[in-house]
Amino acid sequence: MSDEATIAAPSPAPPAPTGPPPKVTNRGRAAAPAASANSETSDIPEYEYFIQPGPRGYPPLTEYLDISEVDMMKRPDESNKIAHHTALYHSDYLIVRRGQEFQVKITFSRPYKPAEDKFALEFVIGSSPQFSKGTYVPVFPTKQRQTTWEGRITNTSDNVVTMAITPAANCIVGKYQMYVAVVTPYGIRRTRKESTRDMYILFNPWVAEDAVFLDDETERQECVMTEMGIIYHGSYDDIAERDWNYGQFNYGILDSCLYIMDRAEMPITNRGDPIKIVRVASAMLNSRDDEGVLVGNWSGDYTYGVAPTSWTGSTDILLTYNSSKMPVCYAQCWVYAAVFNTFLRCLGIPSRVVTNYYSAHDNDGNLKTDIIMDENGKIDRNRTRDSIWNYHCWNECYMSRPDLPPGFGGWQVVDATPQETSDGMYRCGPASVQAIKHGQICFPFDAAFVFAEINSDVVFHSRRKDGTMEPVRVNRTHVGRLVLTKSPGDVTRRDITDQYKFAEGSTEERTVLEKAEEYGCKREKSSPPAADVDVVLPNLEISVGDNFELNVEFENKSDERRTVDAYISGSVVYYTGVASTEFLFLTPRVVIEPKMNKKEVAIVESKKYMKRLVEQANLHFIVTGKIRETGQIITAMKVITLRNPKLIIEVSGRGKVSEEMIATVEFTNPFSFNLENVYIRMEGPGMMEPKSRYYRLVIGGSSLTWTEYFTPQRAGTSRVIATLDCPALRQVQGQASVTISP
Amino acid sequence: MSDEATIAAPSPAPPAPTGPPPKVTNRGRAAAPAASANSETSDIPEYEYFIQPGPRGYPPLTEYLDISEVDMMKRPDESNKIAHHTALYHSDYLIVRRGQEFQVKITFSRPYKPAEDKFALEFVIGSSPQFSKGTYVPVFPTKQRQTTWEGRITNTSDNVVTMAITPAANCIVGKYQMYVAVVTPYGIRRTRKESTRDMYILFNPWVAEDAVFLDDETERQECVMTEMGIIYHGSYDDIAERDWNYGQFNYGILDSCLYIMDRAEMPITNRGDPIKIVRVASAMLNSRDDEGVLVGNWSGDYTYGVAPTSWTGSTDILLTYNSSKMPVCYAQCWVYAAVFNTFLRCLGIPSRVVTNYYSAHDNDGNLKTDIIMDENGKIDRNRTRDSIWNYHCWNECYMSRPDLPPGFGGWQVVDATPQETSDGMYRCGPASVQAIKHGQICFPFDAAFVFAEINSDVVFHSRRKDGTMEPVRVNRTHVGRLVLTKSPGDVTRRDITDQYKFAEGSTEERTVLEKAEEYGCKREKSSPPAADVDVVLPNLEISVGDNFELNVEFENKSDERRTVDAYISGSVVYYTGVASTEFLFLTPRVVIEPKMNKKEVAIVESKKYMKRLVEQANLHFIVTGKIRETGQIITAMKVITLRNPKLIIEVSGRGKVSEEMIATVEFTNPFSFNLENVYIRMEGPGMMEPKSRYYRLVIGGSSLTWTEYFTPQRAGTSRVIATLDCPALRQVQGQASVTISP
Repeated sequence: MSDEATIAAPSPAPPAPTGPPPKVTNRGRAAAPAASANSETSDIPEYEYFIQPGPRGYPPLTEYLDISEVDMMKRPDESNKIAHHTALYHSDYLIVRRGQEFQVKITFSRPYKPAEDKFALEFVIGSSPQFSKGTYVPVFPTKQRQTTWEGRITNTSDNVVTMAITPAANCIVGKYQMYVAVVTPYGIRRTRKESTRDMYILFNPWVAEDAVFLDDETERQECVMTEMGIIYHGSYDDIAERDWNYGQFNYGILDSCLYIMDRAEMPITNRGDPIKIVRVASAMLNSRDDEGVLVGNWSGDYTYGVAPTSWTGSTDILLTYNSSKMPVCYAQCWVYAAVFNTFLRCLGIPSRVVTNYYSAHDNDGNLKTDIIMDENGKIDRNRTRDSIWNYHCWNECYMSRPDLPPGFGGWQVVDATPQETSDGMYRCGPASVQAIKHGQICFPFDAAFVFAEINSDVVFHSRRKDGTMEPVRVNRTHVGRLVLTKSPGDVTRRDITDQYKFAEGSTEERTVLEKAEEYGCKREKSSPPAADVDVVLPNLEISVGDNFELNVEFENKSDERRTVDAYISGSVVYYTGVASTEFLFLTPRVVIEPKMNKKEVAIVESKKYMKRLVEQANLHFIVTGKIRETGQIITAMKVITLRNPKLIIEVSGRGKVSEEMIATVEFTNPFSFNLENVYIRMEGPGMMEPKSRYYRLVIGGSSLTWTEYFTPQRAGTSRVIATLDCPALRQVQGQASVTISP
Repeated sequence: MSDEATIAAPSPAPPAPTGPPPKVTNRGRAAAPAASANSETSDIPEYEYFIQPGPRGYPPLTEYLDISEVDMMKRPDESNKIAHHTALYHSDYLIVRRGQEFQVKITFSRPYKPAEDKFALEFVIGSSPQFSKGTYVPVFPTKQRQTTWEGRITNTSDNVVTMAITPAANCIVGKYQMYVAVVTPYGIRRTRKESTRDMYILFNPWVAEDAVFLDDETERQECVMTEMGIIYHGSYDDIAERDWNYGQFNYGILDSCLYIMDRAEMPITNRGDPIKIVRVASAMLNSRDDEGVLVGNWSGDYTYGVAPTSWTGSTDILLTYNSSKMPVCYAQCWVYAAVFNTFLRCLGIPSRVVTNYYSAHDNDGNLKTDIIMDENGKIDRNRTRDSIWNYHCWNECYMSRPDLPPGFGGWQVVDATPQETSDGMYRCGPASVQAIKHGQICFPFDAAFVFAEINSDVVFHSRRKDGTMEPVRVNRTHVGRLVLTKSPGDVTRRDITDQYKFAEGSTEERTVLEKAEEYGCKREKSSPPAADVDVVLPNLEISVGDNFELNVEFENKSDERRTVDAYISGSVVYYTGVASTEFLFLTPRVVIEPKMNKKEVAIVESKKYMKRLVEQANLHFIVTGKIRETGQIITAMKVITLRNPKLIIEVSGRGKVSEEMIATVEFTNPFSFNLENVYIRMEGPGMMEPKSRYYRLVIGGSSLTWTEYFTPQRAGTSRVIATLDCPALRQVQGQASVTISP
């Protein structure tokens, strides 16, 4: 080797390696990857010796207690599932709730002698189970220090020992493997891994120590046990209902819910905390960012999936997601809320779907929705970007909030509908309803956002030619007009607006809005004087396809004559408040004598709106105008939801468990035009799995009948629900109540 | 058509459409997509008429004021950039800070007549600009209602008008287009879109109305203006320094920072809020979830990128990300913190990198780090999954917190290093340092997580044969031992531990921990009695490749003889505390007379550890053991960071702006083995762009010299820094201070 070779010389840098870079491993970053899949399991050795092998190898341990059989007592009619309110789950496994005792029977090779035999039941969840993480839990027949689960022997008879186990009320929720381990001086002998001993542990609203404890049996029956729900929609003064089969007990649903957490790679150790679970789920229920459950689509084109209005329940959606591992098409807000509700009830977290009428959206926690008009009071659609949703659905779930100061437990808002402008935040909540009501929006998670959805002001701006704007009218009562949910144990609606806000105009309301402003919410400060002319739009009940008259009433409250240059505009709108097409535009000049009313009649012809209807058939009328004498601006808005034709469902048969019955769906196309590519879906909890049928063509004026046989699986009152959906007509529904005797 | 045809018949469902589904549009969901890219601009028409065209088309508007020229006064030596502290930015555009006046000169076609001419400067950002969203801002020479930016004319001379504009102190931060608009009775005439009039508006820590106002000029100079930083690493009792060139003023860095927000699709309207910006950035700086800036890699294999220890500054990383649009390989915590610091300082948010020694990690806000031992006191490495990082770097940024109750503004923790087990949360902060200190961890964002990083207990568990465990020692002072940052205006370190926690053992400290427990943090309750034998490990300064002796000192504090069955274990560890290889394992029995000390000497040979060293050359010694007489467990831990060889940098030349100088880097391979694939990197703010050189081979014992010419661009004291990196030896550094005269 020459001297030169010992002198380092720079070289051209080597070419970059080709091919895909290797997957970056966890090495160096952490001692072991965090377990984040309930579906992954670990193998626990059948023999675990404490000693070194002797010259003949390990001793066989045969002289010690051996396990012949383990009975999980998991039949729906056995005490475990009845006591734990889990008999309705269609599942081959034991399902119990935490913080509450359940029993298993162990048959040993000989009678159990408490003084000399030592055994434990071991509960294991996920890969890399650890005692300190709560993912490996040995339970002994006698009280031990450092274990939070309790065990006791409730019966011994010959070789059979009945052992009762009480899982900790804060233990991890999910699917566990169970082992029986006999401890000998030389080592441990275990049962082999055996899937029949797998079991699920769920949240327990019946037990005071559980974070989801709900001290009201009627509410628990509704918010955990009820499968058939009602979701409200339509508009504030014309409420409509949608039936929904949450199906939380259907075969495969529980596994699908656990899969959602696995797919989110949620650490197993966090799965005992309902706050963390609902937060993860609020992100995972929508497909944004994370390939979650449902793809949102508000476009009206659902060619590549199922129209949001066409779903009848959550079962199809969750089972499809679990089997395809791909987001399911398509959802709008009530579909997100309904499937989220299934997830929550299935895991045992009390929950309900609520509907907020006139929901401010996409305004990122600010308390203003801006509507821009020109100097004459005509709405400038190009510059009006904010929208107020006719309604918006979200979920409430019930839990304590140890992460917050006292007083903010109870109902919490979670929302899985992706929000467009909320800082890339395609998750929302849990936000304490109490915190929202009291304007304490500084507490996690996303309380400010929900606060704005129910408390925003609608600000009408007049835009001058030079581009500046002036607020001319502020409506402080339009948004968050009404919050509804289904009454527990009943099919009526329940107004829960007062849980979200104090009475309009009360001192408390003002204080709360000021508090929210302290936390950075921006409100419109100006209060332009009210005009002395009022304009009122009527309530109307109109069926799709009807011609009708719209009476716009102007009321002059002043002592002088008033002349209004008015703009009467009618548009087809999405339920998001976004206008699709304007089908009516009138510009009357209305002269009203002092202290008098004057009616302006607009004729609405169905041919003007029919071809432009979008799925929820909402017509949005806006009247604006300028009073000549005073320059004041007047405004009025009204959403009219057109009545769709109905599906007629008739059910016949004896109405007994396990006896076949017949459901008949009838539909008549009320229009003169044909309906193409028609899907009908039908299902009923405890009676019928989701079914669907396709009709290529339903000719104008013609009828169709679909007859379906089904066999009820359990007694009680339930409903069969159906929807009809095609590109030209959406949101057609029907339902029939059925009572089944045992 | 026959009768049959009018009766609808079910058909087989049509096949699913093939091909990729169309991109789901925004239609129906929102009136317009939210603008979320600063790089997208809109076209504002040159003429905007208020009137209908006449028979000859539109009038030409030529009789009105016309604009001949606009001077943005953007040279670094002009008043705008000097007054706004933006002269250091290498940029062709005007850069100013919000809430502070700047000036532009407009030359009209004739003298401006205030009484009859009307004009405005229009500032526009992003697509779909809107007055009500703050993305379209017209500024008039006189005060207007409803505008938050102010304008005034400061000088008129012939046809030239100098106009001063003060952007609102809460306006959107980013790149704006500017137009001059002349308003006539017939319409508006504007300047054409012209990129020379583009300008940047940044945060302004010098102005009291800005949310990032920092009322200390020394701090501002350090935390906004300083490019050359020091990041602390090593271990608590043996602190090491790393120089870093943040390079926030380098050419292209500001655009790269805006690109990061664009890539996150952060709505433009949120970009005036530093809270939202830093939260988005904490997610975007790492590549998890969102294809962000940096790929984390702790594995030791950096074949497909640059080793984290090899970077000398942020410039290369940010420019590479902006040009490739792909995550850059590789980062560990200080790289995330350093690049985040560049982002923050570049946008004008005061920020600093801090280092927390003994940082609890990946334990999801619980206050326990578990170390598992067998019944004899020997560490069970398979069951010990938690790790304590020798150090962890994060950022603090300074801002008010209007979203929280008063008292929580000021320094806020943000952390871009992805956390493994924190609920899929690859973002962290802003968390108020005040809230952390006072245990008020209920406030957003992620305060509980940071609290655990500095306040966890280390719990040693003894694991019994039946799988249950008992805590045998709790160390409440190990974690969060020291928090350091660079002193402002100096190259010394500053201990800021007391900003995060009250003195160990004080009443306040106890109260704070209790408060944190109220908010759901779980602590170890048991307090096993301290053993009466202490074990102490020495401080040592050892160079890589040295053989050395480790004296383990046992001190018997009791009045009786004590016998300890000890385990002395030495491992090579990552800075994350994760053990790579155990190179030393001794099991002495130590007998100590009453009230006496006894030394046990372990010989550490370099050949045992050299081949196994990982990049930061940390040796971790753990001594555990059981006292025979009492059954008590003793423990001691010590990290020894081996000294690496240094790079010698020498700089020669006259040391004047724009005069060429020479930097020489020298390195001698101190080992008997060869170093292969060696990269050296060098840079210096205001003097030298990042440069690198590759050496295929540096033979054992040989030296290399690299000479580089450079030309300083500005006066002042700065440093040239360099690193050497190869798979066998990492984290070799050198630096030289340079003073440049004008």
